[in-house]
Amino acid sequence: MPKISNRGQEMPESPIRKLVPYADKAKQAGKKIYHLNIGQPDIKTPIEALNAVKNSTAEIISYTHSEGLLSYREKLVTYFDKVAGISDLTPNNFVVTTGGSEALIFTLGSICDDGDEVIVPEPFYANYNGFTRSVGVKVVPIYSSIDDNFALPPIEDFEKKITPKTKAILICSPGNPTGYIYSKSELEKLKDLVLKHNIFLISDEVYREFIYDDIEYTSALSFPELKENVVVIDSESKRFSMCGARLGAVVTRNNDILNAVLKFAQARLSPVFFGQIAAEAAHDADRKYIDDVRAEYTKRRNTLIKAMNEIENVKCPMPKGAFYCVAELPVDDAEKFSIWLLESFDLNGETVMLAPANGFYSDRSLGKNQMRLAYVLNEQDLLASVNIIKEALKQYPG
Amino acid sequence: MPKISNRGQEMPESPIRKLVPYADKAKQAGKKIYHLNIGQPDIKTPIEALNAVKNSTAEIISYTHSEGLLSYREKLVTYFDKVAGISDLTPNNFVVTTGGSEALIFTLGSICDDGDEVIVPEPFYANYNGFTRSVGVKVVPIYSSIDDNFALPPIEDFEKKITPKTKAILICSPGNPTGYIYSKSELEKLKDLVLKHNIFLISDEVYREFIYDDIEYTSALSFPELKENVVVIDSESKRFSMCGARLGAVVTRNNDILNAVLKFAQARLSPVFFGQIAAEAAHDADRKYIDDVRAEYTKRRNTLIKAMNEIENVKCPMPKGAFYCVAELPVDDAEKFSIWLLESFDLNGETVMLAPANGFYSDRSLGKNQMRLAYVLNEQDLLASVNIIKEALKQYPG
Repeated sequence: MPKISNRGQEMPESPIRKLVPYADKAKQAGKKIYHLNIGQPDIKTPIEALNAVKNSTAEIISYTHSEGLLSYREKLVTYFDKVAGISDLTPNNFVVTTGGSEALIFTLGSICDDGDEVIVPEPFYANYNGFTRSVGVKVVPIYSSIDDNFALPPIEDFEKKITPKTKAILICSPGNPTGYIYSKSELEKLKDLVLKHNIFLISDEVYREFIYDDIEYTSALSFPELKENVVVIDSESKRFSMCGARLGAVVTRNNDILNAVLKFAQARLSPVFFGQIAAEAAHDADRKYIDDVRAEYTKRRNTLIKAMNEIENVKCPMPKGAFYCVAELPVDDAEKFSIWLLESFDLNGETVMLAPANGFYSDRSLGKNQMRLAYVLNEQDLLASVNIIKEALKQYPG
Repeated sequence: MPKISNRGQEMPESPIRKLVPYADKAKQAGKKIYHLNIGQPDIKTPIEALNAVKNSTAEIISYTHSEGLLSYREKLVTYFDKVAGISDLTPNNFVVTTGGSEALIFTLGSICDDGDEVIVPEPFYANYNGFTRSVGVKVVPIYSSIDDNFALPPIEDFEKKITPKTKAILICSPGNPTGYIYSKSELEKLKDLVLKHNIFLISDEVYREFIYDDIEYTSALSFPELKENVVVIDSESKRFSMCGARLGAVVTRNNDILNAVLKFAQARLSPVFFGQIAAEAAHDADRKYIDDVRAEYTKRRNTLIKAMNEIENVKCPMPKGAFYCVAELPVDDAEKFSIWLLESFDLNGETVMLAPANGFYSDRSLGKNQMRLAYVLNEQDLLASVNIIKEALKQYPG
């Protein structure tokens, strides 16, 4: 029997996936599970998007241009102008992709050769491990601390890790899993760093709309000095609750990257037909949709973080954006605790599924007593979940 | 300004893309262009598929399981049983992907490390160059001849190219661009070869439904001895004329590959929501749709090939399947001729756009007087196109 590749063997398993068999068993045993583990919002997709798909008169589900429909890229231009405050982009600055995932894979492929390095503050979105591994790129992590609310680590920490193989810094802001938002002054430090070392800054901004308390948001595209250095990863999945549409974009002013990304895009021919129809309509819809969504998540966040911090020995910093938080629990091992919650615990037949945060660190020994919680449930369910965690901690033997 | 990667710089341009600016200019000049250059069928998507999308009551366009909806994978099991004659598969043998493109990228990533080699009979589907380049895999071509109707090259030619880095043979049958279908005895030779050298056989069978003259079709999955060696690339794009749905699958009985492909799939979270709805409904529709499509393409093929061979000094072997053929023309350089057709020629205001076949060879000096023609137009337009080629050849200076 022929052997598969090292790459295939070493592809990381999703930290969430690992718990699925335990959740399946718990369900079979009749337990009700509150899912704090996944980023699938319960918010409805804008009705305009759903109707646009329903009302499509297309008789052939055909390829579109590899870079995406011009009419859709024009909506993105308007969106970046109005929402991100970036007014100099044209449709040619966008290559439409199959979700933010493909946008990041194409960007990494365009910037890095096999063995090159990308520096990423951790904890970071776990699937960065898979994307980098698939194109032979090495993640070099920089530790950011829960005690500092996951703010940007000292720039000296980055400096120390830069080698001739370093091609980019990759950040996610608002952050998954931390909910942290890099301030303008933090971004300015990164700006100086990438200019000094002549490397790229990849900014994953897919949670741009999920910013609370009127915090000022700065896109990495805001710095004219970084014209050639910045690539933004965009996605419709979260802001319009259309994760299954599979629609994202690479956004950059760097023509070499645009040309390379376009060739990756041409090889796979076309982004998704219905996804573009849905997203185009969503961009035409009233901004009230987004405002309402933001108001709802603000409530959920406030409810969850308050309740979590009321549990003894739990530390849960207030996230500024996205719909995740990282909480430190008084347990030996968050993964063991998560499995125990599914296997051995229930409160009146109910339990919760959490995402152990060690999956969001490159070194699985870090964040060992931390959890990522996604507040994609309504307030009542969030409170019920926190109550389960509280009671479970009283009984947990570890 | 930081430099992009060698990979990014070396990503091959699509051979069709190169001509697009010339076509745009011709259109601006008011010429009507018959497109024989692209594989976008003009056939309508099954109405059942379009209606399923219209009638979807989903309020959230959500992620599905990374490996695809179980209900959809069950349809694929039934389909492979009924149409491909493979009756031992279960839903676990399928990982649903974003088109055949992603299926091939995931397969290459699971089988090959950077620098590994895959042997491919040429001419081959031009985007294989992009997919392999993106994951650092080297294509090792084996020349197949138009004089032999692009039959399987002698197995000794393969033997000569096998090195310790060879991980797989990649075939496409029915073939793009050749329309050739490998016979059972040709596949048996490949079977012996891959078993002897303990390598994989990747079989791109996305044109499975486009087989003419009741030719017997053998899937690479038919050989029980190859249980661990075969990966089939599948796609809904062509058979249901839903190229924009972006839906394909990796099909294999090899658990190591399934595990690895699943991890690639988990990293990008989910295949397309609406695509799965559309395809599931298409599989439920009457097979008469496919039979009618096949009858239509049979007529088009017969018309096109007959007319092409009636032109003096043109050689156009009869394709057995798919909806392409490769034709040899009495010209110095098919690419120059294609550009000339767009720039400098018209017949009553009409011209044709062709795909120079050198883009389908690894060595661009091969196939220099060959074209790929896609017969995705109706018979009348095909005849008009051939007439234009005929008149153009009389006037072409090269």
